[in-house]
Amino acid sequence: MRIVIAGFGTVGQGFAEVLHLKSDLFDEPVKIVAAFDSKSYVTDSGGLDPVALVNRKKETGAVGPNRMGSGIDVLDSVDYDVLVEVSPTDIRTGGEGLRHVEHTLRKGKDVITVNKGPLALKFNKLNRLAKKKGSILRFEGSVGGAMPIINLCSENLRGEQVRSIRGIFNGTCNFILSRMDTGLPFEQALKEAQQLGYAETDPTYDIEGIDTACKVVILANSIFNRDVTFADVSITGITSVSSEAIALAADQGMVIRLIGEVSDTVLEVSPRLVPKGHPLSVSGTLNTARIQTDLAGTITISGKGAGRIETASAILSDLMAIMDSRR
Amino acid sequence: MRIVIAGFGTVGQGFAEVLHLKSDLFDEPVKIVAAFDSKSYVTDSGGLDPVALVNRKKETGAVGPNRMGSGIDVLDSVDYDVLVEVSPTDIRTGGEGLRHVEHTLRKGKDVITVNKGPLALKFNKLNRLAKKKGSILRFEGSVGGAMPIINLCSENLRGEQVRSIRGIFNGTCNFILSRMDTGLPFEQALKEAQQLGYAETDPTYDIEGIDTACKVVILANSIFNRDVTFADVSITGITSVSSEAIALAADQGMVIRLIGEVSDTVLEVSPRLVPKGHPLSVSGTLNTARIQTDLAGTITISGKGAGRIETASAILSDLMAIMDSRR
Repeated sequence: MRIVIAGFGTVGQGFAEVLHLKSDLFDEPVKIVAAFDSKSYVTDSGGLDPVALVNRKKETGAVGPNRMGSGIDVLDSVDYDVLVEVSPTDIRTGGEGLRHVEHTLRKGKDVITVNKGPLALKFNKLNRLAKKKGSILRFEGSVGGAMPIINLCSENLRGEQVRSIRGIFNGTCNFILSRMDTGLPFEQALKEAQQLGYAETDPTYDIEGIDTACKVVILANSIFNRDVTFADVSITGITSVSSEAIALAADQGMVIRLIGEVSDTVLEVSPRLVPKGHPLSVSGTLNTARIQTDLAGTITISGKGAGRIETASAILSDLMAIMDSRR
Repeated sequence: MRIVIAGFGTVGQGFAEVLHLKSDLFDEPVKIVAAFDSKSYVTDSGGLDPVALVNRKKETGAVGPNRMGSGIDVLDSVDYDVLVEVSPTDIRTGGEGLRHVEHTLRKGKDVITVNKGPLALKFNKLNRLAKKKGSILRFEGSVGGAMPIINLCSENLRGEQVRSIRGIFNGTCNFILSRMDTGLPFEQALKEAQQLGYAETDPTYDIEGIDTACKVVILANSIFNRDVTFADVSITGITSVSSEAIALAADQGMVIRLIGEVSDTVLEVSPRLVPKGHPLSVSGTLNTARIQTDLAGTITISGKGAGRIETASAILSDLMAIMDSRR
């Protein structure tokens, strides 16, 4: 199994580490034949050393010795089986990631991605392309990180009709709201999240609900067979949640949480009142989802929604599923 | 896909209903070619009407017109692909269920079971037999009912090393302990559970921790690749949990829950103190499991641990997985 890693930031590096850590797990050789980010690339049909890749990136800032041109050119220059597309999300256009995914699927090769841009903008187009070309497109880590949800719904629960999914899909927002529960004003809770590395310097993507909206779109298309994109989501972020609102909620035994909800008719991200003790009233950075089905009733799952190794572990599970399918 | 249903109690009837409800889900014809319980049987190579089967059992107490001899004879009298073995659990010998499962695997046919007897007593023998004969043995519903756990660990999390699983695997005990939290003495809480249909007339199997122990053994063998049986589990039930102990726990912000725990070295069922607010402090009849892994961290899942349709839905998911594998 020959792999190209597109994007060599936190998740790309984490995945390389996981391939190294878990090398004895595979029945067949698994080789990284190319890795690139926006600045540089490296290829080796004999297989690159994952640890050396990570070390070089950490020490020099570059994943490879070659100055980056187009990702498509790198993809065309090597023989590979699976693209692991983990470049940064561009929710406006899908960015380079969309081109990489499309190009790979068109060649009949398989793709694992956690890049929400291509999935939130062009899911159905990509899915149709994959079907037509006999390619496999998997994306467990794109929603909920290490919390199983995509494959849980589409494989384990394949006999169920999933009626709705409601969940906390952004650990940053949940951390901020949890801190506000203790009396901290929004700005201070955000600052704390930034200091702890939970929030970016520019937190817009999280706190405006954009990240959650991407995940809701991915669930809508992949689990509910809908045909929606990011623009179809009704989004309210958490910037307007005041300390007063939180205090008022607390008086009624409630907390405020940023909930993503999807069903056949709903596609929404908004701060909602949740009774204390309810599974969606959790504090901290965990992701939690309530999956309502026709036969099994409600299933609740929670896990780490982000993190280098955690997200990489979701990519690993997709990789092993692809290896099984291709055997 | 030709199915034999062995055992036509609550779960067997629920599964027949689910086959009827979900008939449009299958790409190929799915037929029940035989159904039997301890008293009667019926066969039809053309396929039995699931609704008629359920109605006959409800109205007459018999699933079929023929007086039951040996299950093996019924199995040998029809051509079938999958045995759905849902006869009552016999934890002492494995009972008829063990013979049905073994006989079917030996013929190279597939088995889905929620019968804990064969699995808790002879898992590794059955698993080896299945591998040797190219048969598939699936048993999602045997632990946690509709709560996904077996296939979640062995498929979705296949890249993880599962370090431990701790959970509430018996809704009856959890209901009783939850009611005791409100001040009810054990006997009264048990009576209430019986009145609500959560506990059997003879509640031994649940309240002595036997049911939970069976599930812990199934997890140990299937997820941790251990080679243990029911006799290896250290078991304490809930009959010795006093109102005083519960009150004392409450004073310290704790509840008492019957926890099953399994790891490479632990195999235990016992009432334990759990801090209020902890995911395992839940009240009511739900099952909950905390799966600790090396890469993904801790994943928590909860769902309905019992119920006619809920358990049948786990059988359905196993059936669809078998249909995929056999295609």
